[in-house]
Amino acid sequence: MSGYQGKKNIPRITSDRLLIKGGKIVNDDQSFCADIYMEDGVIKQIGENLIVPGGVKTIDAHGRMLMPGGIDVHTRFQMPDRGMASADDFYQGTKAALAGGTTMIIDHVLPETGVSLLSAFEQWREWADSKSCCDYSLHVDITEWHKGIQEDMETLVKDHGVNSFLVYLAYKDVFQLTDSQVYEVFSVIRDLGAIAQVHAENGDIVAEEQQKILEQGITGPEGHVLSHPEEVEAEAVNRSVTVANQTNCPLYITKVMSKSAADVIAQARKKGTVVYGEPITASLGTDGSHYWSKNWAKAAAYVTSPPLSPDPTTPDYLNSLLSCGDLQVTGSAHCPFNTAQRAVGKDDFSLIPEGVNGTEERMSIIWDKCVVTGKMDENQFVSVTSTNAAKIFNMYPRKGRIAVGSDADLVLWDPDVTKIISAKSHISTVE
Amino acid sequence: MSGYQGKKNIPRITSDRLLIKGGKIVNDDQSFCADIYMEDGVIKQIGENLIVPGGVKTIDAHGRMLMPGGIDVHTRFQMPDRGMASADDFYQGTKAALAGGTTMIIDHVLPETGVSLLSAFEQWREWADSKSCCDYSLHVDITEWHKGIQEDMETLVKDHGVNSFLVYLAYKDVFQLTDSQVYEVFSVIRDLGAIAQVHAENGDIVAEEQQKILEQGITGPEGHVLSHPEEVEAEAVNRSVTVANQTNCPLYITKVMSKSAADVIAQARKKGTVVYGEPITASLGTDGSHYWSKNWAKAAAYVTSPPLSPDPTTPDYLNSLLSCGDLQVTGSAHCPFNTAQRAVGKDDFSLIPEGVNGTEERMSIIWDKCVVTGKMDENQFVSVTSTNAAKIFNMYPRKGRIAVGSDADLVLWDPDVTKIISAKSHISTVE
Amino acid sequence: MSGYQGKKNIPRITSDRLLIKGGKIVNDDQSFCADIYMEDGVIKQIGENLIVPGGVKTIDAHGRMLMPGGIDVHTRFQMPDRGMASADDFYQGTKAALAGGTTMIIDHVLPETGVSLLSAFEQWREWADSKSCCDYSLHVDITEWHKGIQEDMETLVKDHGVNSFLVYLAYKDVFQLTDSQVYEVFSVIRDLGAIAQVHAENGDIVAEEQQKILEQGITGPEGHVLSHPEEVEAEAVNRSVTVANQTNCPLYITKVMSKSAADVIAQARKKGTVVYGEPITASLGTDGSHYWSKNWAKAAAYVTSPPLSPDPTTPDYLNSLLSCGDLQVTGSAHCPFNTAQRAVGKDDFSLIPEGVNGTEERMSIIWDKCVVTGKMDENQFVSVTSTNAAKIFNMYPRKGRIAVGSDADLVLWDPDVTKIISAKSHISTVE
Amino acid sequence: MSGYQGKKNIPRITSDRLLIKGGKIVNDDQSFCADIYMEDGVIKQIGENLIVPGGVKTIDAHGRMLMPGGIDVHTRFQMPDRGMASADDFYQGTKAALAGGTTMIIDHVLPETGVSLLSAFEQWREWADSKSCCDYSLHVDITEWHKGIQEDMETLVKDHGVNSFLVYLAYKDVFQLTDSQVYEVFSVIRDLGAIAQVHAENGDIVAEEQQKILEQGITGPEGHVLSHPEEVEAEAVNRSVTVANQTNCPLYITKVMSKSAADVIAQARKKGTVVYGEPITASLGTDGSHYWSKNWAKAAAYVTSPPLSPDPTTPDYLNSLLSCGDLQVTGSAHCPFNTAQRAVGKDDFSLIPEGVNGTEERMSIIWDKCVVTGKMDENQFVSVTSTNAAKIFNMYPRKGRIAVGSDADLVLWDPDVTKIISAKSHISTVE
Repeated sequence: MSGYQGKKNIPRITSDRLLIKGGKIVNDDQSFCADIYMEDGVIKQIGENLIVPGGVKTIDAHGRMLMPGGIDVHTRFQMPDRGMASADDFYQGTKAALAGGTTMIIDHVLPETGVSLLSAFEQWREWADSKSCCDYSLHVDITEWHKGIQEDMETLVKDHGVNSFLVYLAYKDVFQLTDSQVYEVFSVIRDLGAIAQVHAENGDIVAEEQQKILEQGITGPEGHVLSHPEEVEAEAVNRSVTVANQTNCPLYITKVMSKSAADVIAQARKKGTVVYGEPITASLGTDGSHYWSKNWAKAAAYVTSPPLSPDPTTPDYLNSLLSCGDLQVTGSAHCPFNTAQRAVGKDDFSLIPEGVNGTEERMSIIWDKCVVTGKMDENQFVSVTSTNAAKIFNMYPRKGRIAVGSDADLVLWDPDVTKIISAKSHISTVE
Repeated sequence: MSGYQGKKNIPRITSDRLLIKGGKIVNDDQSFCADIYMEDGVIKQIGENLIVPGGVKTIDAHGRMLMPGGIDVHTRFQMPDRGMASADDFYQGTKAALAGGTTMIIDHVLPETGVSLLSAFEQWREWADSKSCCDYSLHVDITEWHKGIQEDMETLVKDHGVNSFLVYLAYKDVFQLTDSQVYEVFSVIRDLGAIAQVHAENGDIVAEEQQKILEQGITGPEGHVLSHPEEVEAEAVNRSVTVANQTNCPLYITKVMSKSAADVIAQARKKGTVVYGEPITASLGTDGSHYWSKNWAKAAAYVTSPPLSPDPTTPDYLNSLLSCGDLQVTGSAHCPFNTAQRAVGKDDFSLIPEGVNGTEERMSIIWDKCVVTGKMDENQFVSVTSTNAAKIFNMYPRKGRIAVGSDADLVLWDPDVTKIISAKSHISTVE
Repeated sequence: MSGYQGKKNIPRITSDRLLIKGGKIVNDDQSFCADIYMEDGVIKQIGENLIVPGGVKTIDAHGRMLMPGGIDVHTRFQMPDRGMASADDFYQGTKAALAGGTTMIIDHVLPETGVSLLSAFEQWREWADSKSCCDYSLHVDITEWHKGIQEDMETLVKDHGVNSFLVYLAYKDVFQLTDSQVYEVFSVIRDLGAIAQVHAENGDIVAEEQQKILEQGITGPEGHVLSHPEEVEAEAVNRSVTVANQTNCPLYITKVMSKSAADVIAQARKKGTVVYGEPITASLGTDGSHYWSKNWAKAAAYVTSPPLSPDPTTPDYLNSLLSCGDLQVTGSAHCPFNTAQRAVGKDDFSLIPEGVNGTEERMSIIWDKCVVTGKMDENQFVSVTSTNAAKIFNMYPRKGRIAVGSDADLVLWDPDVTKIISAKSHISTVE
Repeated sequence: MSGYQGKKNIPRITSDRLLIKGGKIVNDDQSFCADIYMEDGVIKQIGENLIVPGGVKTIDAHGRMLMPGGIDVHTRFQMPDRGMASADDFYQGTKAALAGGTTMIIDHVLPETGVSLLSAFEQWREWADSKSCCDYSLHVDITEWHKGIQEDMETLVKDHGVNSFLVYLAYKDVFQLTDSQVYEVFSVIRDLGAIAQVHAENGDIVAEEQQKILEQGITGPEGHVLSHPEEVEAEAVNRSVTVANQTNCPLYITKVMSKSAADVIAQARKKGTVVYGEPITASLGTDGSHYWSKNWAKAAAYVTSPPLSPDPTTPDYLNSLLSCGDLQVTGSAHCPFNTAQRAVGKDDFSLIPEGVNGTEERMSIIWDKCVVTGKMDENQFVSVTSTNAAKIFNMYPRKGRIAVGSDADLVLWDPDVTKIISAKSHISTVE
């Protein structure tokens, strides 16, 4: 993995050493009580009654849970959209992530027309390196298809450690690829040993629906959800699975928002497809009834694609599938725009900039919806907030596990008052 | 319904009257024993011990089953294909249909590039009127999309009694429409009160697969099935259902060839979609192992799209779904080419003209696979071979039922020696 | 079919003749406009512009729908229960049925301990013959198992036209049979050519749950639904299907109350089991939230087994399955007790007499929930309210269809003001 | 965990120390190359280029896979059956287990009538302690139900470390409990914090079927499978799930033999039931066609309950579900009888002693069917052969993982030539 996936250059004191005593270490496979000794950002020892050099700062964690830091697999900080940028930049975004127990985020590089993948990637690295308060990595979005793109993909994988690319089945005439193009992109991804991500919605149908609904005189945010029916998401997931099976390429569906989309993933897995599903903070936490809010600003704030489902039983269902393993990882798709920005679409829902927030809330919402309700135990919680993401994106066991040799990114988890502990960020609180 | 759906002008003697005594009348809802009196091609009386005018020809049917004549919902007689025509014309095709207990066929009008729907329709009528030995009707295939097409569709429905149009999701760069176009075609069909038929395969993926497989050096008929994997059929069925639901248009899937495609239909029906599935003689009767036959001519004879499934449990499964009502009607997709014609593709499977036979075998295969095995009773047999087709295509109860006022198209069914009886064809046997 | 299934001896005038002009005749397979001429309780002619003998009473039905009279497949009028009887006797019950468009009911004979099947059957016949205002037939319940029972079953089938017997998997130590006994009963039913009905709940689990819940201090009607969880119904349906498959006996589940029970039936049908499901007025019309009503009398009025489901999406789901054919027939399980009677269980929910009403409301609720919402058309409505029942219980086409030779039991259907029309009941309105 | 679950007292040399260099350590979550140093039966160090005391025996494992030793969760060594005992005793059985890469077995204590649970448990411990060549643990079977049993269960859990009890839904009039009894047993198990195992078949139906088939004159081994139809297994699994949900007791189905039984487990898990499924060597490796072998001895050798499924697609299906996580653990149900013993049932299949072999073949069959075919990777292989079992039965991470502090039970895995390596058994090979 390339350097960019390493730490942001926060000044680090070389004597950076830390002992955490007596906490309950919670990994994805078991929980046990032990001391942890960390040095230079890496866990050096785990054991009972560790004896460490004198003068080491010590934290007493008796009666507390220590977990691997959360990984938010999907953010879009300062994402460009028609001359605007999403409201949180890498500084604000990663601050929010840390505040919620997340110590690493993975953002999406979205190249604008005419900009090469490599140039876009460098742009994102520059933004992230200069502002991130936590570790980060980058997915790269493929929004057109020609020979040059393929060459850039190879360079990104081989020289820059990228291992995930996203294609769009939606956003007709903007980002959308045809099935033939998707087939070819997946074939390249498979050959590179990377993983294919898909924004799954049928853009052709969405475009027809948008036109139909605008013609009916519906212009408000409810038009967004009416023109993105649930089936259109499930259809695209199913199509992605079909292409992935033909090309023998591992698949990853971003933003699982509906029950039927989740069902398609679960069924495909049962038949042997290697496919992962990423529900997000918003789809796990709430439903699409907000689109009918009389408060335009509130309704518009929930505009994202695929939309939140109007079916109120959706969040509970997605949390159940996350708990039984049919869905595996969770992101936030954090990409908020403020009301002034959203107002571009005040007379036409199809122009509202899309995106919700959630990087700070992600872990506590999953804790509340899954652990408190008994759907999962603390170990499964670690799986879906951290470990599985680390495995899928090739960062395990450096990330996603509390073990000797792993990065010193820990969460002292308390559903109410969470604290990040790490050999580095602990020091960096002088910021 | 327009005149063309009436009888072929076989010379008819006006004194044409017939009495069938003592047969067991088998409709889709019940069986009972009674006499039938027919006159001028119409059933005039049904009852016990009918008293009819003297001099009427009488047939004794004691101990025999009398059923509504079969309806083959899918034929492609003398279908043009790159300068060739499929081997059976309307004379040979309808002769074969009658020999198998089928008294009506519905053929597909397939307009060539640049030919208007109306002109193509007239061409087919001319062919059929001059040669058919049984009743016929016509589906019309939509192979491109523009304003003129829409106008022709309206004319066909309003002035010519057409009520079904087929679109292709396959045959990339030839007949295939985009999802946007399909959405618009379905919207027109819905407004016209007709039904949308779909040839369901993902043409983009098929094209990619064909290229890949040819590059691997596979040129024989097995390449056909390898490049049309089962999933590609199921995917397209699912996409069709999605568009049908959005446009609120009734849907009909032609040529259901695989278990997974049938499953998609069954699940959609359970959720309330109005969708019908048409397995064909070939998919009900056999599997795709033939594609690996060492006899090229035999292997090539099974080339059709979607292909027969290599999964040997497929025919039994499709017969079960037909029996429980998840699939509803049966056709033959009768469109054979002879070996000399197939040889166009001897070095490249993708050039082999496509189509199988089956109009003669359809009813006996369903009898053997479903009734003899106990999957269905004689009444369900009538449903899937005749009554359901008549209902879907608006010909019920003139077709599809033995009742006073219905057409005198009967089958004296005997699994071994079937005979067509009708006030007209009976007379026409002098041919 | 034996005489008892014939008409109640309402005095009939021999000149009883009736002409209905211009109505829209709605059968399960089609609708069409025609006149109907009825004589002596039987339909004699159907056609346009019928010419009938002078002096015949004529009803103008232009613009109105005429349907086969409804068949309520499940009533328990004046059912004995611990010295009480359910509140409506055969007179009141059948009056209510007629008021709702139902012209035939099928009641359950429930033998008390020590009473032979034959004696109980005669008792029910006596009650029904003396009081019924409409046609009736009888199911016979098997509540214990020994040699004498088997002999009585044979007599009932051969000499009294009974063709359906019900066993209980619930009511432990009262009516409940073991799986071995059910196996043997089903084997007898199969040999007799009858159909097996099952009250499907796991009585062992219910008894344990009742005890547990009473021990927790819950004594009100909500304890009823808490001690009859939905799974316990689905489990028993699944077990019944298993035994039916092993014994090759046709199966019929009474009172389908929950989504999961309905699902089991739907899945079994797909695999080839001959099984029918009977949702009832109550389960199609409402849910189990009433059990938590603060009004004890109201809460107690909904006590029935299996109970109404607390899941509020249940009625919509059952109506959908009824519409797509996964469920087939509808009854009322009409067996109300008044509040004074229910009060026996005021301190212990397990003692509350069980049963709801619904024979009058059945057809209008299905019309509202299924036809008005677009789930089914008028023909499917006739299927599930009348035709399917007539077919299953061997009364078709005398019942369940408007056809020459069928009984003159018609409904002039108007969702608001329904009227029963028949050659006989029309006359009998002098009552 | 009690002492009995510790090691058999094979003489151990106190200087017992071992270094394995350069192997690829395969755990359930990842693979990596490192040295392992073991001392006194425990793993002391894992790391690159370990420096250990001189004189330590060293094994070079470069290019080889090292896995946690297999755990066979289901054996029945020297099981008493009507005066006989199954052919392999604890010595022969554990020898076979070791030969196949399994370093721990869990046997079933099956109390004979009138023998208390505790006495039976002591008997089994005596047998195992005197003969086992590998670690063992014990499940305890509940074959009758009264107050004394409950007390023994508490003692076994609290004083002897037992954490799993099995009930039988089959073997009518021998081991079979009623649903009420199962409900009560599960309630006790839940209160004790143990897990409920179920032998899932409907014993009532099996008894009826056996009688029917014997009456038909079928006496050979094929009668065994004919009288244990697949549905009877799935039914009992479903019933077990229902009771487990009502009692809130974790559930474990032994011997998953059929596709439909596996499906019930998979669906229950998706709805949130805590249930595990145990396919066995035989059901993963072969099908039930053997029961029709003309060689009586061969056919009889496959007699086990539930039987192998005659559906030849079963093994592939079970392996797929094992690979996707719907099934979790694997045992052998090793309980062979020799032909002379089986001959007791030569004139009546229902008397043939039941049980197959498989403790030696288990791991290699799963490797061949799942890993070689690409259904799972090496890490998943470790999950289903070892880690999951250790977690379910509370032995993780002492068993089921190669980690510092874990037991030194390793397999040097080679699909062809497997070797057990452990600090102890390595020494004990002098035997």
